[in-house]
Amino acid sequence: MRTPKRLLSGLLKDDCFLIATHINPDGDAIGSSLALAEALVSLDKKIFLYDRDPVPQSYRFLPGHRKFSADLKKALRADPVLVLLDCNSPERAALGAVTFRKTVVIDHHETESAFGDLRWVAKDAAATGMLIYALIRSLGLGITPSMATNLYTAIAVDTGTFRYSNTTNEVLCAAAELVSAGAEPNSIAEHLYETWDYGRFRLFLMVMNTLEKKDGVAIVHVTAEMFRQTGTNAEDTENFANLPRRIDDVKVAAMLRETGSGEWKASLRSKGAANVARVAEQFGGGGHRNAAGFRIKGDLATAKKSLLKALRKTIA
Amino acid sequence: MRTPKRLLSGLLKDDCFLIATHINPDGDAIGSSLALAEALVSLDKKIFLYDRDPVPQSYRFLPGHRKFSADLKKALRADPVLVLLDCNSPERAALGAVTFRKTVVIDHHETESAFGDLRWVAKDAAATGMLIYALIRSLGLGITPSMATNLYTAIAVDTGTFRYSNTTNEVLCAAAELVSAGAEPNSIAEHLYETWDYGRFRLFLMVMNTLEKKDGVAIVHVTAEMFRQTGTNAEDTENFANLPRRIDDVKVAAMLRETGSGEWKASLRSKGAANVARVAEQFGGGGHRNAAGFRIKGDLATAKKSLLKALRKTIA
Repeated sequence: MRTPKRLLSGLLKDDCFLIATHINPDGDAIGSSLALAEALVSLDKKIFLYDRDPVPQSYRFLPGHRKFSADLKKALRADPVLVLLDCNSPERAALGAVTFRKTVVIDHHETESAFGDLRWVAKDAAATGMLIYALIRSLGLGITPSMATNLYTAIAVDTGTFRYSNTTNEVLCAAAELVSAGAEPNSIAEHLYETWDYGRFRLFLMVMNTLEKKDGVAIVHVTAEMFRQTGTNAEDTENFANLPRRIDDVKVAAMLRETGSGEWKASLRSKGAANVARVAEQFGGGGHRNAAGFRIKGDLATAKKSLLKALRKTIA
Repeated sequence: MRTPKRLLSGLLKDDCFLIATHINPDGDAIGSSLALAEALVSLDKKIFLYDRDPVPQSYRFLPGHRKFSADLKKALRADPVLVLLDCNSPERAALGAVTFRKTVVIDHHETESAFGDLRWVAKDAAATGMLIYALIRSLGLGITPSMATNLYTAIAVDTGTFRYSNTTNEVLCAAAELVSAGAEPNSIAEHLYETWDYGRFRLFLMVMNTLEKKDGVAIVHVTAEMFRQTGTNAEDTENFANLPRRIDDVKVAAMLRETGSGEWKASLRSKGAANVARVAEQFGGGGHRNAAGFRIKGDLATAKKSLLKALRKTIA
């Protein structure tokens, strides 16, 4: 993974940056942002970290996570350069209405917009964390234990902790070096996977009990009422689609989540060759080959029907 | 990880080996044995592979797994050197009654016996697969794609696919090199974790729906009737206790499985300091600090009550 020279010189030239990432941020978004922020601060840059949404509970072990803010005012007064991480359009970061004097994009997603004065969109990278790891080394900086924890988490989340097809030799080498630099695989895995509260466990069972399986597709759904009954929220459904994906004849697992007022958020997880990013794009969404999402209006039965129809074509 | 020179010269000196591993073999036992067998065959050695129990369904993707046999007769006629892998006493491999002219032990478990003319018991190794990987390289042999698949699987299984505390820099480096040599992380993970048939999924839900949680203990149970309804068997319940263990205030997750005639098999999984081997010993069973088991007679309610009482003392 070679960091583009124009990007490096561009970052070195300026003094004040707003690092922003996508709404509903995940471990790659947050970990990458925090590691880049720490690196730039060590070069005496002024850094603001922005996300419209709060850091999810499960990522509040990441060093520096409190530096994220949903308030733009103070940052904008400093006239920063925008660095958009783990997404490539300002709308994905809820920044569509803001103008910046200069913009940088560092991302690895398939669905691409042309935004950004300086762009590094590496679709073959397993995680934005891999790009930030390469960037920090290209800047000649050492990896601190906090950078290591943030980057290891970023890479772990986007590779299913080294289980997805994006787990390459390069990914495992980077992980090894991050462990040498202070990342603790067991502690990180426990934070990511072993801290469900009981409400989340009950929600999980409720959702799994809705499973319908047909033509290589498994669909589950979660309603506002289920969230109410278990005292949980959307954040708690992360990775729920991984269980139905385990079933041997399931090629795509989908979860429909009620977002209110007759709208559903669909999350798709595929295994093997099925490209769910293509399906999500048909509904105005996006993502990766094996993990993508979109929003759909209508009642549950209609939403399921439209989704099944689109998926059947992809799988066939 | 340095391979002892005496071990290398000992292996090179002889021509015929029986590679044997422990009963109820896991991925480390099987993968390590198959990789070592392939290496020794490439050096023109005659090799027999022995296990009392069949290779479990979930490991039948491993290259060469059909070479395992439960029949000793033919092997013993050839007067082989015994190589005991992933265990260090012949009893663990159901070989307590057999005498060999020479014996070799390669293992990473706590030493429990002094058995073996040549011994390499490395307690700090994450997996026996790490030792075989080092050994094959010390022999100056290249890692073939089938060796890589076997060794990567061995290491993945014993580190929880890089989630347990034995996941070191060295482990991740070895994994990276095995990927370069042809191991496919996604394909292996799919075989290990994503090939549930639908019956197993339905059994999983049935079992999870029985969950009771009290005083830091989560108990689930599985009855003979549930197996019948879903067309599954005991093998299908592997790792079921991992889900209740995720709940944040659960220190021990237990599963009671009906084995017939008023008897239950208890499997215990703990996190943190709770030592479930001590509890299992009270019931005449055994195991490790974080994973142990035993058998108990009686009806379900009585079995649960006895178990809860013993666990409460351990956790307190």
